[in-house]
Amino acid sequence: MTLHKSQEPEITSVVELPTDKARWITLQQINYTDQTGKPRTWEVAARKTRAAKAGVDAVAIGNILLPANGDPPSTIVVIQYRPPLDAYTVEWPAGLIDEGETAEQAAVREFKEETGYEVSRVVDVSPVQAADPGMSSANMKMVMVEVDLPEGAEAGVLPEQRLEDGEHIERVVVRLDGFYDRLVEYSKKERFVVAAKLFHFAAGMQFVRNRGKELKLL
Amino acid sequence: MTLHKSQEPEITSVVELPTDKARWITLQQINYTDQTGKPRTWEVAARKTRAAKAGVDAVAIGNILLPANGDPPSTIVVIQYRPPLDAYTVEWPAGLIDEGETAEQAAVREFKEETGYEVSRVVDVSPVQAADPGMSSANMKMVMVEVDLPEGAEAGVLPEQRLEDGEHIERVVVRLDGFYDRLVEYSKKERFVVAAKLFHFAAGMQFVRNRGKELKLL
Repeated sequence: MTLHKSQEPEITSVVELPTDKARWITLQQINYTDQTGKPRTWEVAARKTRAAKAGVDAVAIGNILLPANGDPPSTIVVIQYRPPLDAYTVEWPAGLIDEGETAEQAAVREFKEETGYEVSRVVDVSPVQAADPGMSSANMKMVMVEVDLPEGAEAGVLPEQRLEDGEHIERVVVRLDGFYDRLVEYSKKERFVVAAKLFHFAAGMQFVRNRGKELKLL
Repeated sequence: MTLHKSQEPEITSVVELPTDKARWITLQQINYTDQTGKPRTWEVAARKTRAAKAGVDAVAIGNILLPANGDPPSTIVVIQYRPPLDAYTVEWPAGLIDEGETAEQAAVREFKEETGYEVSRVVDVSPVQAADPGMSSANMKMVMVEVDLPEGAEAGVLPEQRLEDGEHIERVVVRLDGFYDRLVEYSKKERFVVAAKLFHFAAGMQFVRNRGKELKLL
């Protein structure tokens, strides 16, 4: 894959950010009593943007693209430069839930913005999941969607994205039957890293494909 | 499942933690130039404990328990109170990589500490994965292990854990063929949340079990 960009993003400096100057995230000290009644503390990173209605920070959009001609199904992943990793991350489309939205509404909106595709069907909304529970209070839901591709979409022409200013998001369509192998390939590329949630989903798929019979899962 | 504890953990206060007082995690502002050369900033939560040798913060230990009598395989998950969520999280055993360790060594050590079981075989070590790439620089590897259970382990007696002071970790053995359903059940329980990585792996398994034939994945 070629990333269409004029230059490589580059970090110019990393500075310690005082908590009272941070706008999007914060550090908290939680004081609590444990199971034995002993007072303890824990350090936590938290988002400052959680929408009240959903009570959930973000959605990730698992997706299946179904070709009109019966070709094998694919999924669309997005690749973008993520400053926290100083790397291009491979992820399913995802985003924060806006005030007043449900997880499902956020998923349909974000999927359209990042991929250009209209969702044909929402097939599942997961329970709330803890993003990185040892370190952070961030949480998310996975919304699984399907897109019935129009005739001719097999030719590889993707619809127009609706990105916000400053968003540079590449899209890659990957056949589901080669999904795990492609993620492993991306992981070997210089300055690329796969997001843990996506990698775990694909690894779970591959686990059943490779060992499902032996382990009596099929 | 009953959690054996004398009382429920309780948060007594949450206070903003100044960055220069934090010991385990920190906030950073990353200044960078994007693909168009425009200067931008990003707020990041980072761990302060990354071991130099591994270059990776943590391991999660995917695991398969294989009964000696040929009964269906299981996996062991751990449940612990996580102050960032004020909830009991369901996760695969996991831990930070100590200085001088490889991911594989950390996995074998943590698995023994948290579950009491010796690893029989390490079957896979994943590439580096980004834990929550929009918000944090934290990263991890998944190490997949197998345990050949001794005769009689089917009776449900678990070996002794080796927990550190203050660790209260319950273990639950779940049959792999009922894994996803159990995680959904846990998600419905008051004050329980499943970790996103674990949920995604189980969802990937279930996806192939339910739709693998229809989607030509098997």
